[in-house]
Amino acid sequence: MQIDLAAAPTDPGAYDARKRRLAETFTKLYLRGAWRPLDRLVRRLHAADAAAVFAELPVAQVVDTLQAVSRPRHAARIVNEMPQALRHQVVEALPREELAELLENFRPDELTDLIQALPEDRREHPLSALPADSRDELDSLLAHDPGAAGGLMTTEFFALHEMVAVREAIDALRGYSDAEMVFYLFLTDEAGHLTGVISLRQLLLAREDAQVAEFMSRRVIRVRTDTEEEQVSRLFDKYRLLALPVVDEADVLVGIVTVDDIIDVIGESTTEDMLRMAGTRQSEMLTDSVFRVAGVRLPWLFAAFLGGLGATAVIGQYEDILGEVIILSAFVPIIIGMAGNVGVQSATVTVRGLATGAIHLRDTVVMVFKELRVGLLLGAFYGVILALYGLWIYDSLHLGQVVGLTILTNMAGAALLAVSLPMLFVRLNADPAVATGPFVTTAIDVLGVLNYFVIASLIYGL
Amino acid sequence: MQIDLAAAPTDPGAYDARKRRLAETFTKLYLRGAWRPLDRLVRRLHAADAAAVFAELPVAQVVDTLQAVSRPRHAARIVNEMPQALRHQVVEALPREELAELLENFRPDELTDLIQALPEDRREHPLSALPADSRDELDSLLAHDPGAAGGLMTTEFFALHEMVAVREAIDALRGYSDAEMVFYLFLTDEAGHLTGVISLRQLLLAREDAQVAEFMSRRVIRVRTDTEEEQVSRLFDKYRLLALPVVDEADVLVGIVTVDDIIDVIGESTTEDMLRMAGTRQSEMLTDSVFRVAGVRLPWLFAAFLGGLGATAVIGQYEDILGEVIILSAFVPIIIGMAGNVGVQSATVTVRGLATGAIHLRDTVVMVFKELRVGLLLGAFYGVILALYGLWIYDSLHLGQVVGLTILTNMAGAALLAVSLPMLFVRLNADPAVATGPFVTTAIDVLGVLNYFVIASLIYGL
Repeated sequence: MQIDLAAAPTDPGAYDARKRRLAETFTKLYLRGAWRPLDRLVRRLHAADAAAVFAELPVAQVVDTLQAVSRPRHAARIVNEMPQALRHQVVEALPREELAELLENFRPDELTDLIQALPEDRREHPLSALPADSRDELDSLLAHDPGAAGGLMTTEFFALHEMVAVREAIDALRGYSDAEMVFYLFLTDEAGHLTGVISLRQLLLAREDAQVAEFMSRRVIRVRTDTEEEQVSRLFDKYRLLALPVVDEADVLVGIVTVDDIIDVIGESTTEDMLRMAGTRQSEMLTDSVFRVAGVRLPWLFAAFLGGLGATAVIGQYEDILGEVIILSAFVPIIIGMAGNVGVQSATVTVRGLATGAIHLRDTVVMVFKELRVGLLLGAFYGVILALYGLWIYDSLHLGQVVGLTILTNMAGAALLAVSLPMLFVRLNADPAVATGPFVTTAIDVLGVLNYFVIASLIYGL
Repeated sequence: MQIDLAAAPTDPGAYDARKRRLAETFTKLYLRGAWRPLDRLVRRLHAADAAAVFAELPVAQVVDTLQAVSRPRHAARIVNEMPQALRHQVVEALPREELAELLENFRPDELTDLIQALPEDRREHPLSALPADSRDELDSLLAHDPGAAGGLMTTEFFALHEMVAVREAIDALRGYSDAEMVFYLFLTDEAGHLTGVISLRQLLLAREDAQVAEFMSRRVIRVRTDTEEEQVSRLFDKYRLLALPVVDEADVLVGIVTVDDIIDVIGESTTEDMLRMAGTRQSEMLTDSVFRVAGVRLPWLFAAFLGGLGATAVIGQYEDILGEVIILSAFVPIIIGMAGNVGVQSATVTVRGLATGAIHLRDTVVMVFKELRVGLLLGAFYGVILALYGLWIYDSLHLGQVVGLTILTNMAGAALLAVSLPMLFVRLNADPAVATGPFVTTAIDVLGVLNYFVIASLIYGL
């Protein structure tokens, strides 16, 4: 079969070719008004694949085709998998009644994500399409911190009273159609408190007349609605979980977080770390305006700007030496650059190690000494090369001594600073990723230039 | 109960306190030789928690305590969850017979990871403890690329012939004890070719006398042993999978990859990206020697070193101007620094966007123009400030014009270069993360300094 995207999704080239061919077929059927074949075709595709094909088509065609899809949950899943910009356009273009049917088939957490991603002034249309009770549920979900368990969880989960028999549990499961991600059954008491968990596998292997409570596990790892998402994803990783129940302050079960949500979180949080280290926050590059992107980056650059002015002031103080030995200024870029680069390496290793848990605060002394020695080693290597270069090209022993010594001390100092600052930030409960970008680079620039001219003054005796 | 770590793992402070208290209890029981209570205590802990407690204890005590654990699979899971350094020490310290029993209870993929992480010269002891057939299986697993599906998969999975009845399938499942992560049942034909999949939930809800083949899904997303792990993790993310079957060239089912392995992969691959951008590869900072760490970083720094020498040569060419206007050299650091910083921002957004799929090659023109405009905007802002600063502090209209114009053009140029190079690298099928570190920074340094002195020559008319 030519149209089966899912069966061979590992070859990106073949996948793209098939996707384009499918988009052509979609368009052909659409232009002929062949809605039934179109519906059949869409239904045979995985929602993620259908969304990828729709991303190739004009919005008006996507909207019309979606209305021809006869399984509303499938249509909802497709819209949920679409690129954000297209999803927003579809929501805007759908007539109110069709939108209502579509949104009814979103899972509560999908719906929350959809609304949250929409700019405030574009939420009116989808909100007005929701029935009152969905709107209330949405409000309560939107009230949670989007970066906490309450913002990640779905409120559509499968829980039963702890006093059921296995047969009843299986019957209940049979009646629960929208259980895409069911692999655990959570048990509660009368008041809704979480009291146990049992896996589908245990249920499958149990005698039908047994009580669930006999073999459910009572020690359930749980999080509260306000548990931060980094903490939630660490629990998934540590205990190799597939789903995690979320409780409120009174230990009442209010939702579950599933592993597929966590995969998204892990990707997003490392991306955030990387962007923060570079001094920006923006990842939605294609949809945000130029002014907005510049606005996010501007303040971070200000730290570097102040550092640069500091270096300028330092050099200004040594105008006399520069007047005598003009060539000293030629080495400013390499001296700053080498220290900055070794600093970024040390800082990245440290920040990343802290984030992944490979390094702990108690390793501070070990790490600092290690980085210092690495910096000294690298500084010695490049210091000797640069000293020889200065000696050879400019035929000056003084120049060779100055640049060689500066590289050695600057690189060691940069490594030391770049490992210490993130550690210090963690101790102060600040985000270590922030430390790298503006702080480390600025400090290295200013101190590096100062060190250079102090050494030059001493050696030239000026 | 005081010792229940798993029930409240969301409060890091409380968790650490309990962990320390447990470590004390472990030690007390150990010193009394109270093996049975110690065994009971360990068995009640989640393997991940037990491993965390063991990490607080001396190696000799860990080895003795492990030998008292009466459930060998639990002991194996605990060792598997230990920090790498401790795991290696335990493997080395365990007597051959006890080690053999422990390793027998490792899953094949866990065993492969353990051996792969050991330095070559320390593998002899664990390998000699394995029975011949395990060693053969291990050899065939070790033959796979550790960065591909074959290196991730476990060969212990649950598959049945497609021609079974539901009742038989359930009975088979009952007999299969080591199925920690079973949620799908894979079906094969006589020759072992993968032909279908059915979820536990479908099995649970089916009539017992039905044939599995009647309602299994025949379109199974699969990967080959040589499919790269980034591709595998993208499939898990896209199709929200819990497990993915791995086939060989003949489409014979040879293993499965589970979602918990993928969570590790996602964390590791973004870490790799970040370290690569910074020009290093080392994340095992605490265990590697200083010389090894320096050796990894040295070549990356060489690119920056060459760039620095290039900038030095450029400035050397303009010695005459510097002799006339010494203060020009004071602005070299800020001019290089600002361009470098905006370049890192643009490059990070681009590299990250490409890695997460938020940006595609076909967006090149849009992205390049956008970054150019962002660079111009930021350059205009900081250019005006620096021009005013030059004018005000040094009372020179010429100096103000030179530094202002240079900042404007350098920042715009840096943004342009930093977005274009990663895109170009992707088009050439090279790793875009590599582009940022050495290439972008070096190019920005040299071109930035050159641009500065060209503008200065023009405006000062020298």
